[in-house]
Amino acid sequence: MRRHGIALVISAPSGAGKTTLIGRLREEFPHFGYSISCTTRAPRDGERDGADYHFLTRARFEELRESGHFAEWAEVHGNLYGTPLAPVREMLRQGQDVLFDIDVQGARQLKQSLGEAVFVFILPPSLAELERRLRGRGLDSEETIARRLRNARAELREAAWYDYLVVNDDVDTAHDHLRAAYVAATLRPLCRPDLLRALEQGALDAAAV
Amino acid sequence: MRRHGIALVISAPSGAGKTTLIGRLREEFPHFGYSISCTTRAPRDGERDGADYHFLTRARFEELRESGHFAEWAEVHGNLYGTPLAPVREMLRQGQDVLFDIDVQGARQLKQSLGEAVFVFILPPSLAELERRLRGRGLDSEETIARRLRNARAELREAAWYDYLVVNDDVDTAHDHLRAAYVAATLRPLCRPDLLRALEQGALDAAAV
Repeated sequence: MRRHGIALVISAPSGAGKTTLIGRLREEFPHFGYSISCTTRAPRDGERDGADYHFLTRARFEELRESGHFAEWAEVHGNLYGTPLAPVREMLRQGQDVLFDIDVQGARQLKQSLGEAVFVFILPPSLAELERRLRGRGLDSEETIARRLRNARAELREAAWYDYLVVNDDVDTAHDHLRAAYVAATLRPLCRPDLLRALEQGALDAAAV
Repeated sequence: MRRHGIALVISAPSGAGKTTLIGRLREEFPHFGYSISCTTRAPRDGERDGADYHFLTRARFEELRESGHFAEWAEVHGNLYGTPLAPVREMLRQGQDVLFDIDVQGARQLKQSLGEAVFVFILPPSLAELERRLRGRGLDSEETIARRLRNARAELREAAWYDYLVVNDDVDTAHDHLRAAYVAATLRPLCRPDLLRALEQGALDAAAV
C-alpha cells in the first residue's frame, strides 16, 4: 500500500476518555509515527536530548518559532513546547500516519500548518457525566474539577469545526467511531496517489493495493 | 440520536463485488431507506404502481424531468428510470439514511442534486482480477465480458472524484472499509445539528446522544 500518510488530530476535554480511546486505536494500529517535540524546560532524570525531546534555550526556540519551524507550539507553566513541522511532513510523505493528541489551541494551529489533517473531537455525553467522571477518578481537588469543567465548556465550543465528533457514552461505540474516522481517512483519493495515477492511465493492474 | 440522514452513494464496475458488500452493510444497518423510482416501462406480473415503481407515460416522465423532479434519471434499453428528489430530501431531513446503488452517470447527477451525499467507489484489485471474476461467475458470454471490461475501464476513470475508494481484494477488509466510510459520515458535525446547537449554547446536556 503506497498511500500518503494521515495526520490524525484528536482533542477532547479532560475526562472525556481520550487516553483510553487513543490507546485502543494504537492497539489495532501500532504503526502511528511520533514526532519528537522541542521544549525549553529542563531535562528530567533519564530524559535524553533528541530522543525524548529536543531541549532548547528559549532564545533558540523563539528563533525557530519565528522562522516557521513549528507545526504548533504552546506555553505551558512558563515553558515553551513545539512540534517541528518538517519531520511530520516527511513522515506523511513517506506514507507514515502521525497521531496528534492535542488541545484545541494546538489543533487550530495544525489546521493551518498541516492542511489535510483529519480532526476528531471526543465529547462526553453530557457535562454532568463529565463532572461525574472527573470526581470518580479521585485525582482532582474541587478547585481543579471546577477549572476542568470551565475549560471543557470553552473547548466544546470549538468542536464544531472538527471533521468528526465522537461522543464517548459507551466506550466500545466510541472506539468504533474513532476507528471509522481514521479508516475512512485512508480511503480518500488524495491519500492514494498511486491508485489515482493507475486509474487515470486505465491501468489498474499497475497499482499495488 | 437526532441526526441528519446520510445519502450513501455506491458505484462499482460489474464484477467488483458491490452487491455482496452492500448486502453485508445492510445486514448490520438494516435501517437504510428506499426511494420508489419512476419508470416508463410496463409493469411486470405482480408489480404494483406506487409500491414497486411509479409507472408513468413517457410524456409524464419527461414533463416531471423538465420540472426538476428527479435526483437522477437514465434511459436503459429504451425505457426511462428516475429517482424523485423530494421523498429522498424528506427522508434525509427526518434522519433516515438512504443508500443509492448506482452507476457513475447516476452518481454524477446525485452529486449535483443531493449536495452532501457520501460517494464510495468500489474497485477490483486489478482489471485482470475483474476479468477472472466475470469469467468465474459463468453468467456472461465472451462478448458481454469484453463489453463489461470496456465499461469498467471507462468507469474507473470516474473513481477519482468519489469521496472514498474501497478496493475489494479481500472481502472482509473491503466490508470494513465501506462500513468505515458510512460510519464516519454519521460523525460529521453537519449531520448532528442537535449536538452543534447544544455545543454552541454550552449546554451539552441538552443533546440526546
